[in-house]
Amino acid sequence: MTQLLSARAGEITPEMEYVAKREDLPVELIRDEVASGRMVIPANKVHAAGALEPMAIGIAAKCKINANIGNSAVTSNVGEELEKLHTAVHFGADTVMDLSTGKDIDNIRRQIIDKSPVPIGTVPIYQMLEELGGNIEDMNAQHFLDMVEHQAKQGVDYMTIHCGVKLEHLHLTVNRVTGIVSRGGSLIAKWMMAHNKQNPLLEAFDDLCDIMREYDVTWSLGDGLRPGSIADASDDAQFAELDVLGECTKRGWEKGTQVMVEGPGHIPLDQIQMNIERQIEVCHGAPFYVLGPLVTDIAPGYDHITSCIGAANAGMHGAAMLCYVTPKEHLGLPNEEDVKQGVIAYKIAAHTADVARKRKGAQDRDDALSKARFAFDWKEQFRLSLDPETAQRYHDETLPQDTFKSAHFCSMCGPKYCSMKITEDIRQMAKEKKLVELPTT
Amino acid sequence: MTQLLSARAGEITPEMEYVAKREDLPVELIRDEVASGRMVIPANKVHAAGALEPMAIGIAAKCKINANIGNSAVTSNVGEELEKLHTAVHFGADTVMDLSTGKDIDNIRRQIIDKSPVPIGTVPIYQMLEELGGNIEDMNAQHFLDMVEHQAKQGVDYMTIHCGVKLEHLHLTVNRVTGIVSRGGSLIAKWMMAHNKQNPLLEAFDDLCDIMREYDVTWSLGDGLRPGSIADASDDAQFAELDVLGECTKRGWEKGTQVMVEGPGHIPLDQIQMNIERQIEVCHGAPFYVLGPLVTDIAPGYDHITSCIGAANAGMHGAAMLCYVTPKEHLGLPNEEDVKQGVIAYKIAAHTADVARKRKGAQDRDDALSKARFAFDWKEQFRLSLDPETAQRYHDETLPQDTFKSAHFCSMCGPKYCSMKITEDIRQMAKEKKLVELPTT
Repeated sequence: MTQLLSARAGEITPEMEYVAKREDLPVELIRDEVASGRMVIPANKVHAAGALEPMAIGIAAKCKINANIGNSAVTSNVGEELEKLHTAVHFGADTVMDLSTGKDIDNIRRQIIDKSPVPIGTVPIYQMLEELGGNIEDMNAQHFLDMVEHQAKQGVDYMTIHCGVKLEHLHLTVNRVTGIVSRGGSLIAKWMMAHNKQNPLLEAFDDLCDIMREYDVTWSLGDGLRPGSIADASDDAQFAELDVLGECTKRGWEKGTQVMVEGPGHIPLDQIQMNIERQIEVCHGAPFYVLGPLVTDIAPGYDHITSCIGAANAGMHGAAMLCYVTPKEHLGLPNEEDVKQGVIAYKIAAHTADVARKRKGAQDRDDALSKARFAFDWKEQFRLSLDPETAQRYHDETLPQDTFKSAHFCSMCGPKYCSMKITEDIRQMAKEKKLVELPTT
Repeated sequence: MTQLLSARAGEITPEMEYVAKREDLPVELIRDEVASGRMVIPANKVHAAGALEPMAIGIAAKCKINANIGNSAVTSNVGEELEKLHTAVHFGADTVMDLSTGKDIDNIRRQIIDKSPVPIGTVPIYQMLEELGGNIEDMNAQHFLDMVEHQAKQGVDYMTIHCGVKLEHLHLTVNRVTGIVSRGGSLIAKWMMAHNKQNPLLEAFDDLCDIMREYDVTWSLGDGLRPGSIADASDDAQFAELDVLGECTKRGWEKGTQVMVEGPGHIPLDQIQMNIERQIEVCHGAPFYVLGPLVTDIAPGYDHITSCIGAANAGMHGAAMLCYVTPKEHLGLPNEEDVKQGVIAYKIAAHTADVARKRKGAQDRDDALSKARFAFDWKEQFRLSLDPETAQRYHDETLPQDTFKSAHFCSMCGPKYCSMKITEDIRQMAKEKKLVELPTT
């Protein structure tokens, strides 16, 4: 049984109960959203029996964020990856993808799943490539099915699989500025070119569904042809693949598996709404899981910011999960500090989307922090902020003494200029009926 | 003569010529935009005769950014402020406001104007308050006129003056979560409460225009009642003041002065478009100069990011200049590193808006950088990025050796996984006519 099949049968699972509490939504709503395919609860049975605290991804739930960790051939080890996991979860990542491609992949994944309270995603073709010694051409469908089953047994909650890239799409990428930028997508492209055959993962789709269903692994349909630059955004290649993902979504649902769909990438700000709406329509409302998108290409070193702009807008228009981008994007593998910076930027984006969509209770934290701000309750401001340690450190740079934690000003304005102080006087006058009043328009 | 009066007379000034070249737009268009009031060229005659390189702010021009510098009573000196000026201009600030409120104000301002190639803005009421020993109640209209004339003589290019806050607006702020957060606005409120009289700056508006016109100081009509929290966004107080600013805009134009209008503040993402469109309508198309806006209150320490999201959206919907916010916002006075972080976040926002609005040539830099990225030309990528030094440093953290500057991969994926490499193979196959082709839809 998957969460989807249970929901369709009208059943309420313990995972749905848990999610309903976390989201502060009626459990029947959760069940109905899961049944419709608009919401997924990525909870592999193996992980669900272990450390997993179930969560939901879907437009009715709060906007979620994912943090990618994992080593690569040139850097990092298991200890560092567990540190990154801890940092990501500490600062609020809702799911974590282990994208390890270097040595020791199985051991890293096992330890991450063992310790992680959040769902873990993977891209199975990475380990596939390792096992094939770097020659993707040597893969056959059974190899890949075995790899997916291997990882499903380990407890992976969702898997990115690039079923949507078809042989006849490749020529659409030839005149792109940045061609194919998805690693998985390009590996499949390479395979198809070598064999002059259709995408083997698409051909094996039903068999893959059988494995996913057994463990309740959620599909994360990969966008192998996502644009890698502003110039390539919203082009024929991107949307040709999206149409295939829409078909896969339906097939996945028919086979009883949970499905979400991945999206771009690099998209100028004026095209984000259109992209989200189109995906929701083409993929029948399946949760949309976007990477950023970055709204400009000119700021390597700051792509957590360029993409945070896109992510906030994507979330506002209906994306269900935002995959973070770190300051190291395009430059190197993120370290622990990069993970932190990426997660915080994306907590901002997701929360911005929740406030903009007026999700239940979303603005409460803003209001509480602003009330503390107005009351000069510095400690409460720090406590309510996304990164209390940094907020306090910045404050203390100029006014470190403990007495200033109760001071009615900060170094930005100094005591004489503090507008908050003057507002208190206005309130006093209002109480004493000394203010001119005009009717509220 | 002001730029506005010259433009109305059909005259093309040297400043318009200069601006036309910088914007790559016909000089007649610049003149017509200035004549209509939709564009300003803040160029005090004194500064224009000195270091100023004229620039334009308006919807037809590229989106601009402002960086605030200046000391406060508790911190900083002239040397530090000149360093901040240098940093702000180096990373691309289009204007700089000197918001000094502590000691040595005149000396700091004189030196900044002397050295600055970008227009300098001030908020004259800050120095006013210093001269009154902190008691704004002791001010009369003539004091303020003298202060504006004093600063105009020094060469200040634009001034924030809070004419829009009226006595009858104050009661509208009483139930706000954060009351009045503008320092200038709250000082005027305090004065009005003390005297139970109308805003003296509004009463002196025509006399102020006479001074502004003489030196061609551009109005930056301050929004003293801007919302300081998400809870207070788009409320009656904010829009009551905006209506007054709309009237002031017309009066300023009638008196031959250039006018721009300041805007919020803290606005949830779903209300930004409405706010910009409303301002453009109410203020008859005068350039809108917004502070952020911040789209959430929960991330002190990261408000360059929370506000960058709002600023990019504001710019896309027609805001002409974006006032930066630094990571120190709400916590303390920004230092040089904060200035840099704020400027870069806002260069991203303004450029994002230019790309989204399809301004002439805006996307060229994105395309050039992405081409360099695809060609693995690391040095060119660094060179084209907003902060080359940081981009290179991040890259070199894992692959410092010079040989990797020409490597066809980075530490993010390692050599085997590089999708860019595979795309090259696809192109080769396409050349050899080995790719399946379908008609482009």
